[in-house]
Amino acid sequence: MAEEPQRTEISTLGEFGLIEYLTKNIEIQNASTLVGVGDDAAVIDHFGRQTVISTDLLIEGIHFDLLYTPLKHLGYKAVVVNLSDIYAMMATPTQLTMSIAVSNRFSVEALTEFYEGVYLACERYGVDLVGGDTSSSQKGFIISVTAIGEVAPDQFVCRNTARKGDLICVSGDLGAAYLGLQILEREKRLYLDDPNIQPELEPYTYVIGRQLKPEARRDIVEWLQEQNIRPTAMMDVSDGLSSDILHICKQSNLGCVIYEDKIPIAEETRLAAYPFQLDPTACALNGGEDYELLFTIRQEDYDKITTSEQISVIGYMTEITDGAHIITKGGNKYKLVAQGWNAFQQE
Amino acid sequence: MAEEPQRTEISTLGEFGLIEYLTKNIEIQNASTLVGVGDDAAVIDHFGRQTVISTDLLIEGIHFDLLYTPLKHLGYKAVVVNLSDIYAMMATPTQLTMSIAVSNRFSVEALTEFYEGVYLACERYGVDLVGGDTSSSQKGFIISVTAIGEVAPDQFVCRNTARKGDLICVSGDLGAAYLGLQILEREKRLYLDDPNIQPELEPYTYVIGRQLKPEARRDIVEWLQEQNIRPTAMMDVSDGLSSDILHICKQSNLGCVIYEDKIPIAEETRLAAYPFQLDPTACALNGGEDYELLFTIRQEDYDKITTSEQISVIGYMTEITDGAHIITKGGNKYKLVAQGWNAFQQE
Repeated sequence: MAEEPQRTEISTLGEFGLIEYLTKNIEIQNASTLVGVGDDAAVIDHFGRQTVISTDLLIEGIHFDLLYTPLKHLGYKAVVVNLSDIYAMMATPTQLTMSIAVSNRFSVEALTEFYEGVYLACERYGVDLVGGDTSSSQKGFIISVTAIGEVAPDQFVCRNTARKGDLICVSGDLGAAYLGLQILEREKRLYLDDPNIQPELEPYTYVIGRQLKPEARRDIVEWLQEQNIRPTAMMDVSDGLSSDILHICKQSNLGCVIYEDKIPIAEETRLAAYPFQLDPTACALNGGEDYELLFTIRQEDYDKITTSEQISVIGYMTEITDGAHIITKGGNKYKLVAQGWNAFQQE
Repeated sequence: MAEEPQRTEISTLGEFGLIEYLTKNIEIQNASTLVGVGDDAAVIDHFGRQTVISTDLLIEGIHFDLLYTPLKHLGYKAVVVNLSDIYAMMATPTQLTMSIAVSNRFSVEALTEFYEGVYLACERYGVDLVGGDTSSSQKGFIISVTAIGEVAPDQFVCRNTARKGDLICVSGDLGAAYLGLQILEREKRLYLDDPNIQPELEPYTYVIGRQLKPEARRDIVEWLQEQNIRPTAMMDVSDGLSSDILHICKQSNLGCVIYEDKIPIAEETRLAAYPFQLDPTACALNGGEDYELLFTIRQEDYDKITTSEQISVIGYMTEITDGAHIITKGGNKYKLVAQGWNAFQQE
């Protein structure tokens, strides 16, 4: 954690004082937010649209490490990963609740920094913070986020509605966030061995940025809507392409084939993978935290999809009896498993 | 914690396996639940009604003690305290998300017991569990609950809309949950000194029940609706009558007077207070966790309100310049403060 030029103990504000302090500058952005922070509950009117809701619990030491995660980035990411779930339903996020619990290790200034990131994300994505609370924890920083969104009646897209022959698409590129994490973990070990060492992060700006400050793909959802392309199934890539496509397969009762050479991987990711002797494809399949959108479309939409440079077609859905496979660059066929490249079994 | 006849390590199921195991018996109760557990987000259609949302973060060692809280009760209470916030808006709870994080101290059987309480509360209150997840924690049991409800357009009741002269009402009785906690804490100390000691809880069934297994006052909300009484302001009593009425005063920009002899306190509460040399009125004012409804009504509704034995009229709202006071049984006037009886300042 960064040094604190000023440190105000949370106890000087008290619980209600702290909430008031942290929420005093909120400006409501959505007409649907009828009641925000400060009552027993928030009230939302989506005016005939359907409500979408997603929730996440993030725990220091399990989901994030404050040694290399600036608090502002943490606040931003905590919001964005939840909005990503709302976009993954082809819905628009509109409100958010955020509860945190902290030990007395954290000062008011530290929480202010965290909330700066929260508010920045809320502002960028046009979302209102409408509730939540703060309390003490026995150990570390605990974050609970619930995102609420809206969608025109029955226009949401689930995971269980892919059909045989549908094309599998993914936005952006994969594997970078995982490599960013590996680099941050390596620098942490070096720092703990010798606190005077100067970290060399310059060549890894892209992959570290993907880890510390992910964005949700609102642009992709809006583009699909503009193009009148309605995916048949959709989810966001949070656990790795392999694990996530298997969710769509299982819930849609189908199999799939994906092609290694079609998986989008950034040049920066390949370069970062090299010194770790990691296979970039394995990072894409099993790394996770990319927050890209994984979705299936009808074959008729292929021509339209290819007009976006941000979307790659990586395979297609098959019968469930065909299983779920990846065809490597060398032409080998491996079974897709959720546990990582090393666990692949050649058939 | 109770002894476990069978212990299955959570690791044997894995994260997705665990979620599946814990949610496999969910039956949807509300037509508004379009998509429940198992996708990126849940989808809700309140069919033109407004959506109400409330959230809570509960942490072992801060908000509950598993030495004397059975896991099933904990699951039940975690749900009920959130539903109480929805009822406190005069709304009807319809959906719930529940995320938990646990250390490896907890087995699948322990989580099953916890979820039994969750499902029991959901069933009793007609609420659908629509999302959430499970993850590991570094220490203890962490619970995050978000409750969603619905209300006819603009029929919700906030805290900031009380008016001068309105009558202050409270449902049920106050102070019991706090005394239940004192007794459980005392028995814990005795047990830790001598684990062979037999706890004597029989005379305290009522107050302990109020602590471990509170109920949300759905009945009061329904009765008010039937009687066509619309409170001018409402909240639930979670931090103690004193702290909570001060919220209504502050947010409505008013003062108040309440009468000690009108505050409803159960006989069992008075009996439990005696051995602790606690003033039952202080327990009601500053104890908290009663989950009763505190609300204001217009004077015209007085006759209707008195037909309910479950509701007490305890005072009235005044100008803000008059301050917030309690008139004791002895006729003395004290300033109401949120910090407890001892901090009262006679004027």
